[in-house]
Amino acid sequence: MSLGVAVIGYGYWGPNMVRNFYENDDVEVRWVCDLNPERLQKLARRYPSVQLCTDFATVLADPKVDAVCIATPSDTHFELARQTLLSGRHALVEKPICDDSAKAQELIDLAARLGRVLMVDHTFLYNPAVRCIRDLVESGRLGRLLYFDSTRVNLGLFQRDVNVLWDLAVHDLAMMDYLMPGQKPVAVSATGIAHVPGQPENIAYLTCFFKDTLVAHIHANWLAPVKLRRTLLCGEKEMVVYDDLEPSERVKVYDKGITVRDESELQKLLISYRSGDCWSPKIGPGEALQVEVRHFVECIATGAVPLSDGHAGLRVVKLIEAATLSLQRRGEPVEIA
Amino acid sequence: MSLGVAVIGYGYWGPNMVRNFYENDDVEVRWVCDLNPERLQKLARRYPSVQLCTDFATVLADPKVDAVCIATPSDTHFELARQTLLSGRHALVEKPICDDSAKAQELIDLAARLGRVLMVDHTFLYNPAVRCIRDLVESGRLGRLLYFDSTRVNLGLFQRDVNVLWDLAVHDLAMMDYLMPGQKPVAVSATGIAHVPGQPENIAYLTCFFKDTLVAHIHANWLAPVKLRRTLLCGEKEMVVYDDLEPSERVKVYDKGITVRDESELQKLLISYRSGDCWSPKIGPGEALQVEVRHFVECIATGAVPLSDGHAGLRVVKLIEAATLSLQRRGEPVEIA
Amino acid sequence: MSLGVAVIGYGYWGPNMVRNFYENDDVEVRWVCDLNPERLQKLARRYPSVQLCTDFATVLADPKVDAVCIATPSDTHFELARQTLLSGRHALVEKPICDDSAKAQELIDLAARLGRVLMVDHTFLYNPAVRCIRDLVESGRLGRLLYFDSTRVNLGLFQRDVNVLWDLAVHDLAMMDYLMPGQKPVAVSATGIAHVPGQPENIAYLTCFFKDTLVAHIHANWLAPVKLRRTLLCGEKEMVVYDDLEPSERVKVYDKGITVRDESELQKLLISYRSGDCWSPKIGPGEALQVEVRHFVECIATGAVPLSDGHAGLRVVKLIEAATLSLQRRGEPVEIA
Amino acid sequence: MSLGVAVIGYGYWGPNMVRNFYENDDVEVRWVCDLNPERLQKLARRYPSVQLCTDFATVLADPKVDAVCIATPSDTHFELARQTLLSGRHALVEKPICDDSAKAQELIDLAARLGRVLMVDHTFLYNPAVRCIRDLVESGRLGRLLYFDSTRVNLGLFQRDVNVLWDLAVHDLAMMDYLMPGQKPVAVSATGIAHVPGQPENIAYLTCFFKDTLVAHIHANWLAPVKLRRTLLCGEKEMVVYDDLEPSERVKVYDKGITVRDESELQKLLISYRSGDCWSPKIGPGEALQVEVRHFVECIATGAVPLSDGHAGLRVVKLIEAATLSLQRRGEPVEIA
Repeated sequence: MSLGVAVIGYGYWGPNMVRNFYENDDVEVRWVCDLNPERLQKLARRYPSVQLCTDFATVLADPKVDAVCIATPSDTHFELARQTLLSGRHALVEKPICDDSAKAQELIDLAARLGRVLMVDHTFLYNPAVRCIRDLVESGRLGRLLYFDSTRVNLGLFQRDVNVLWDLAVHDLAMMDYLMPGQKPVAVSATGIAHVPGQPENIAYLTCFFKDTLVAHIHANWLAPVKLRRTLLCGEKEMVVYDDLEPSERVKVYDKGITVRDESELQKLLISYRSGDCWSPKIGPGEALQVEVRHFVECIATGAVPLSDGHAGLRVVKLIEAATLSLQRRGEPVEIA
Repeated sequence: MSLGVAVIGYGYWGPNMVRNFYENDDVEVRWVCDLNPERLQKLARRYPSVQLCTDFATVLADPKVDAVCIATPSDTHFELARQTLLSGRHALVEKPICDDSAKAQELIDLAARLGRVLMVDHTFLYNPAVRCIRDLVESGRLGRLLYFDSTRVNLGLFQRDVNVLWDLAVHDLAMMDYLMPGQKPVAVSATGIAHVPGQPENIAYLTCFFKDTLVAHIHANWLAPVKLRRTLLCGEKEMVVYDDLEPSERVKVYDKGITVRDESELQKLLISYRSGDCWSPKIGPGEALQVEVRHFVECIATGAVPLSDGHAGLRVVKLIEAATLSLQRRGEPVEIA
Repeated sequence: MSLGVAVIGYGYWGPNMVRNFYENDDVEVRWVCDLNPERLQKLARRYPSVQLCTDFATVLADPKVDAVCIATPSDTHFELARQTLLSGRHALVEKPICDDSAKAQELIDLAARLGRVLMVDHTFLYNPAVRCIRDLVESGRLGRLLYFDSTRVNLGLFQRDVNVLWDLAVHDLAMMDYLMPGQKPVAVSATGIAHVPGQPENIAYLTCFFKDTLVAHIHANWLAPVKLRRTLLCGEKEMVVYDDLEPSERVKVYDKGITVRDESELQKLLISYRSGDCWSPKIGPGEALQVEVRHFVECIATGAVPLSDGHAGLRVVKLIEAATLSLQRRGEPVEIA
Repeated sequence: MSLGVAVIGYGYWGPNMVRNFYENDDVEVRWVCDLNPERLQKLARRYPSVQLCTDFATVLADPKVDAVCIATPSDTHFELARQTLLSGRHALVEKPICDDSAKAQELIDLAARLGRVLMVDHTFLYNPAVRCIRDLVESGRLGRLLYFDSTRVNLGLFQRDVNVLWDLAVHDLAMMDYLMPGQKPVAVSATGIAHVPGQPENIAYLTCFFKDTLVAHIHANWLAPVKLRRTLLCGEKEMVVYDDLEPSERVKVYDKGITVRDESELQKLLISYRSGDCWSPKIGPGEALQVEVRHFVECIATGAVPLSDGHAGLRVVKLIEAATLSLQRRGEPVEIA
């Protein structure tokens, strides 16, 4: 039996969602909806079996639609997801889950009450390289985590309504949340700048503080001449570098670090350095979105809780909200509730 | 006529200074002084003509010593430089000029009063790649500057007495000061962490705010599995990436950016994107230290003001002091006097 | 009016051809034909409007088929292309045009006699980076050409019937033919080895000699741990490096070289070296196959001669035939007729 | 007791030899000899304890000279080495051992007869990365060797008297000889070109054939815009890539390859592909020349046979001689005696 799916929004990301739902054997893509009819025309040629419309009501009126994938601008996520859930459908929402933590909580409550799946498209959680790193963390091989550092910069589309944290850092925060399970940020400090007067910040630097001697930093930038996608996750025993643009060795594990010995009788600490081999695990192929769509379908079928559920979406939104406040105050730290 | 030089400190950096002074035809290296006689033994074999000693007084007692190069730990810079100047000698001090801005000012005043050259070893100012970038800035080719972003990370020696800003970020701040002439930071925000309890911070992130929509960020880190030395200097017209580890094209100039048009009648801004050619200027050979030593010798001979004079040293120290304070307050912004 | 197209073969390359014909607005993909019905099933889901069949006769029986794209193993190219042309259709044949130069000549003659377009899928001729290099050559900027050197290695599928030259070097030879217009190879020498007993050579090194002091070399290898796609085209004035795997600067133009002066009175040559800037032209986006399909459609509409016509295909096959002979004789040079 | 050493030739390579002998505690550098007195002046300043001269006889007249290091142009190696040995001294000769295999044999015989150490400066045999690869080969980890492929290109000094094989490929041949112990080339084929009329070839491609399904290829080039130093050594089980310019992971070991199964009942071969992890062993620091000098001193002290003895030098010269002949015949294979 096939799951009836509608995709809302056919701009930048929608085509990827449509393609991946389309190629999933357990799914029937029934509708694609976009306010702009021109965009839909491209689609018609490619997927003649899919129905097209420009208003959301048409989608909801189809009783064969079981789930809705929302790939519209983030300020519309809340209302579309709310209506989706209220109509009894499951929802997969593009990141960020929505533009406000209170509304995110409302969606979580609604989904729980109605027994529907609410999942957020934190794509990197379904990326084989990121999963490989999570396995490394869980195996204990890295040892106690020391820091997370992520750079995501390129010459990218300046968004009008949200700053670069909402657009780019959301990926890194979702990864951080996934790769450091159980670690809760207690405060953030963020700095940045808007180079176009009256527009949101196009460069931002964000630090997350944790209870322990753990720190996370993210550099998000729409105005860089080169594209960089590099994440460091360093533990006491081993250190990981994940370069998403590297064609062959995307994940490298370094047997490097320091060892601290407390020489009590000497009244001092001795620090020694380790610099050993580097190892690059084979990363299986597989498109993250394909894995993600399969996971969404399974959660609907089995009632399982998605890896990137509403709570994961909410945790990320809370951090961005706090960071945006700190940004306005030139780095002043903001506590996370 | 030859300039009599003494080098104080023969640890990590001292050998480089000795070699470069030694190879300068206008210099006679008369003394190398280090508290540790073992270090000096290595030297004896290599430079049999140089006299060795373990106390500074011996150096000062030699009337043929015209200038002193101080390559000792930074907390000793002030006292050694002070005595050097008071004894009527010229001083070249390893970076940072000293560990306190008030003392730096005292050295500046002393040098001015006694008419002696006080120069700080901001090595990158004498690096041909950095000079090439400065020329690009001055030519107007980059347009109005938008941001400076510098990453300097590797698995490096943890220092006991100073945090990583004093050790690594000092290079980036000196470069920033040189590459953005006339731009004065008004405040800084810094975050970071000390992974070894009771020790100074080994990771730090520093943001400098300026009057205008200009921002600078530095990432300094002693605990990274990979070595990165990358600086971005982006202007409205062109953007520069300087990768000090790149064997061939160390400086790349990108014809990339955005163009903002104010469409008054439309009540909105139009942003368009440019992505053109990339150009990598030929960087001449030449060791920075060799150029620096030559400059020091010339300033002594001609009375010219060094490019990296005491004021440059002081500006950098003030920023690090403010950043260290901000670091302790988890990013709270600190004004620059 | 739409061009009716059939694609024969839906293995490795066929899906790319189908997709690009499908997305061309002037084309109607009427048939995809493959001996293997399983392969066709995948297609059915994706392109529900396309008709499927397992025998070529069905395709030829459809009067609305105007052109046939042949993407089958190379030993079937000749017969399929022959029938295509004889039935009055235009043919686009995957590289190599066929497995024998006499047969390639027969196809050329047939197409000429029947007034049909015969085009070979030398994909790189339609690649924007390669076109950019051709423009550089034609502008005279590189000066007199000195050598072409191309490396195409990775861990690739060992083919059963043909050696690695027929599979990989064909790309480099087609590029060479295109980038050095008017230069005719006079002889080739090739070496290599078959690591699997009884199978064709999986590593080959090929040198083309020209009349002048021009040389070309190609390294083709199915058994390499890393993927390399690098081509050098060096002229007296400037030198080009084309790295097809480089994400950003795929083409680099180096102002490097030597200058030779004949010092007659000194009875010797003076060689001086130039090492100037490097420049990387912006390469437009655009998939090569899309450009190629458009060119095929245009040639049919206008009667223009395709860039990669049967003669281009024949020139490449002749070189591979000669190289295969040389390979068997451990590098003995073989003249090109 | 200190070994008295003289270095002959203070051009490109001589200064490296002098420095490394100078820094060896068991050596006293007594003389440096060069026909050009200007070169020696630079030296005087740097190593005031070393005696300088412009004729070789002066060196030989000093009874405290135990060993001579010959770093002059290769056409002078034979005569200088011969006189060195005849005078009872040990000889370390820069690569190639000399310019003719018969003369190399004469030096070998002379050294044997007089009981003196004759060593050739095949520097890469003392490079820690190359030694690491040799250990991998000997451990059996790579499995049966399949091929060696080495690229050594850059914009380098055109030599007047010898082609690029004598200058660059000698390194790769020495490495090949060392990394594939017991494997004897039976024939070579070489191609190339001289871009400057009347001068030796500045680009050369060399293939070595072995008895088995093993092949080696070397690309040596003085006229390339980029510097490449990459060697592949591929075995049935694992494959090594050695990139001498890579700052961090110079040696990478790939768990990649093919597995061939003979399916007799199916009358065919099944080839399956392996693509596993990549591993980069930590390469210790240490300058190759320092290790080499120490080895030379030890061989003299203990009578041990140098790793790069006269026979190693001769094997390399024989290959270059055969390759040069093949080069003149456009790739025609030449047997190795």
